[in-house]
Amino acid sequence: MSFETALKTAQDDIQATLTDLLVAFDGPVGDAMRYATGGGKRLRGFLVLETSALLDVPRERALRAAAAIEAVHAYSLIHDDLPCMDDDNLRRGQPTVHRKWNEATAVLAGDALQSAAFEWLAAPLTHPDASVRAELVLTLARDAGATGMVWGQALDMAAESAEDPLTLEQITELQRLKTGRLLEWPCRAGAILGQADPVHLLRYAADIGLAFQIADDLLDVEGEAATVGKAVGKDADAGKATFVSLMGADAARDRAHALVKSAQDVLLPFGTRAATLAAVARYVVTRDK
Amino acid sequence: MSFETALKTAQDDIQATLTDLLVAFDGPVGDAMRYATGGGKRLRGFLVLETSALLDVPRERALRAAAAIEAVHAYSLIHDDLPCMDDDNLRRGQPTVHRKWNEATAVLAGDALQSAAFEWLAAPLTHPDASVRAELVLTLARDAGATGMVWGQALDMAAESAEDPLTLEQITELQRLKTGRLLEWPCRAGAILGQADPVHLLRYAADIGLAFQIADDLLDVEGEAATVGKAVGKDADAGKATFVSLMGADAARDRAHALVKSAQDVLLPFGTRAATLAAVARYVVTRDK
Repeated sequence: MSFETALKTAQDDIQATLTDLLVAFDGPVGDAMRYATGGGKRLRGFLVLETSALLDVPRERALRAAAAIEAVHAYSLIHDDLPCMDDDNLRRGQPTVHRKWNEATAVLAGDALQSAAFEWLAAPLTHPDASVRAELVLTLARDAGATGMVWGQALDMAAESAEDPLTLEQITELQRLKTGRLLEWPCRAGAILGQADPVHLLRYAADIGLAFQIADDLLDVEGEAATVGKAVGKDADAGKATFVSLMGADAARDRAHALVKSAQDVLLPFGTRAATLAAVARYVVTRDK
Repeated sequence: MSFETALKTAQDDIQATLTDLLVAFDGPVGDAMRYATGGGKRLRGFLVLETSALLDVPRERALRAAAAIEAVHAYSLIHDDLPCMDDDNLRRGQPTVHRKWNEATAVLAGDALQSAAFEWLAAPLTHPDASVRAELVLTLARDAGATGMVWGQALDMAAESAEDPLTLEQITELQRLKTGRLLEWPCRAGAILGQADPVHLLRYAADIGLAFQIADDLLDVEGEAATVGKAVGKDADAGKATFVSLMGADAARDRAHALVKSAQDVLLPFGTRAATLAAVARYVVTRDK
């Protein structure tokens, strides 16, 4: 199966799983939960499916973990887009949740998506072994919480009001938390579901996580808003330190490609079975949105 | 041990557990998480401890579940106090989180407290049997999420913009979700930790949950802001339907006391071992804050 076909199939399967799981939720908050989890690249969910496939995890189990990480990702975007945070009007080419509904609905839909993710992971259908389910919950709670993604968001907020722009070291640490941790978790989840040592997959994840953020910074400078689906040029306008502002576009691009190569090297022991994961690494830096 | 001593001891033990668990979190978001979980009646945590004691659950396990429900309760208050929700400046006699810090910190601290609660429940220290931990996560995620507390908050929001005030039946349903579910979970958690049938404790919880909300409505009408620790008279000013506006203060008080009696009757089979839980039921309607 080509990478494009595998990604498209994963996107459809993850959407079907989310549609099925989210049917439980009524009213505007339920509608906002469905809206915010609709569309998107499904990169995090795809990583769960592909790392799970590598370890022979049944796809229906991996799909529940994929839905959970997509729900947490969507919650983080809803709250990050709020007026008191990044104040964004557009996400994936559509009005953000607080623009389409209102701020209260956005707060509640984000809150409920976080709860839903843990509900899905903890339910017996995710894995017959409860210790696997508990480990999925524990690791996602850490990666999403105040020592993971939220900590990265707090550093990002602090940077905005700081006198000096961040150094390259600081921005790397910030992004390793803010974006990296929710890109690492899918690879960890594959290993947990497959009851395998996560060490190789986590090295792969760390490389593509950083490459992903560098690519995001390049898109903010070079992308078209219509294609990217959100406002571009925001970081430069805000005088915010990014990989591009600190390294220059060419060096940033070189670094992203080196990280892709490093991620692909980690996969070598898995041979051709990891071909799609190798393609994911390339996709992370060549995507146009 | 008298009820007052038992409550005071529980409050101290829960605070010590929260202090210990929250030490992991740095910066303003960590400070806000500590601030928002400091103080309060600890009624939910106390219910975990007392139902657990009834079933001979080791106290150190019950304390982790107590810390988790207090974290979720605190998260719900932080977000509920936001300008886009109830817009409150005062909570437990202190400035609300978004007033003391800012809205972004309040959003993130609430988000991170929710993650932390699931992290604590899923960790092996909570119970050696992973199926117990997974069940605690699953039930709390349901009770907090968009079929539980958040659903109650959404109904509350909808009621504010509705033409007609709510009926007694509707307000009962709303409060059973918004306040009741997080008062039920502690009793369910005791049963899960004790690997016992939760049916009796859940009936007890349903009764005191409703009594609690009726008492809250009475405090909003009759309480002193300085004692209650938050603005009073808000519901009446907003023309909001409450148990008191729908039933009158006397009938509301009678109903609350009947619910206490019903809750205490459920405890009869447990004999004197349930004396503190019986006292909790009385406390729920006699408290002055």
